[in-house]
Amino acid sequence: MDSRKRANFINSLTGFKSIGLIGTKNKDGIENLAIFNSFVHIGANPALLGFVSRPDPHLRHTVVNIAETLYYTVNHITEDIYQQAHQTSARYPANVSEFDACGLSPEFKDGFYAPFVKESNIQIALELKEIIDIKTNNTRLVIGEILGIYFPEANLDEDGYLDLEKSGSIAGSGLDGYHKTNELGRLSYAKPDPFT
Amino acid sequence: MDSRKRANFINSLTGFKSIGLIGTKNKDGIENLAIFNSFVHIGANPALLGFVSRPDPHLRHTVVNIAETLYYTVNHITEDIYQQAHQTSARYPANVSEFDACGLSPEFKDGFYAPFVKESNIQIALELKEIIDIKTNNTRLVIGEILGIYFPEANLDEDGYLDLEKSGSIAGSGLDGYHKTNELGRLSYAKPDPFT
Repeated sequence: MDSRKRANFINSLTGFKSIGLIGTKNKDGIENLAIFNSFVHIGANPALLGFVSRPDPHLRHTVVNIAETLYYTVNHITEDIYQQAHQTSARYPANVSEFDACGLSPEFKDGFYAPFVKESNIQIALELKEIIDIKTNNTRLVIGEILGIYFPEANLDEDGYLDLEKSGSIAGSGLDGYHKTNELGRLSYAKPDPFT
Repeated sequence: MDSRKRANFINSLTGFKSIGLIGTKNKDGIENLAIFNSFVHIGANPALLGFVSRPDPHLRHTVVNIAETLYYTVNHITEDIYQQAHQTSARYPANVSEFDACGLSPEFKDGFYAPFVKESNIQIALELKEIIDIKTNNTRLVIGEILGIYFPEANLDEDGYLDLEKSGSIAGSGLDGYHKTNELGRLSYAKPDPFT
């Protein structure tokens, strides 16, 4: 396989992916917005969210901004904005804000340094905790602590489950596939002998 | 929030999740199967797949087996087996095979050490490359190199994209939500000025 075909194939094997837009602002006040498809839950207490960043000069804007300013946002993607969200993956120069270039709106609130995506349904404010080098292929795992969350409160179930499907979040696949979801069900906490 | 409610809530914030069953066999020949919802693409060349493991004694069976034997499988989950897959999260004793306990079938092929899940649509054979300690909360990122893949070849597009939706893979949310998908579309490689 050539490298592009191989990238498509291997990226498909992960399964459906957590996708989101990371909003940052550099020291000179220039905003940056980039789509990532490599989010992973790290822990609930403290509340930690991670993502993997490739050693790609374009993607470094996001990680450089996070390392320099410590604060960033993660914003879920809905059907209404997935095309704009995908467009943020284009290689814009460092002095261009992807918000402007891609038709999304920066939103500042509660004094937080980094921009949220106004059109997003679920917005998360984070502070950098740890950047881990993955030696095997020179990528990095960036871990942040969740400081605040804006979400549709009507979709929070009594047991703490936030219904992403009702909230309109979508899933990714491969490098460029986007999918709505249909819930099959929620299953109860598994015990060794469920039928006894 | 109490700890269970908090775990549900924070686990929802990641977005839709990559889920899969990890199959291992310990040095004494006892098979183990466990569902994980923390898979993340690490790289395409070499082909690397990662997952995060909590510092939970039950989950350690999987990681201990991988560390001792180096080989493991990741198997996608379909609508037909998601209830059995979820059941593998129950805390079975170390001498019980979750294959037997949960109604799934171990499959050995091509001389690979670890068991695949026969009922799975996409089966991946991996070799351990790196276990990284995440200091912030004592979890670990386990990275493996993909050695082989069994998949429905009719669903591989010409450009290397493996159509997970056609293949029947499903997505997760929170700790216990399972979802089928409906493709919105695949988008072309993004360039800075798509309309010029």
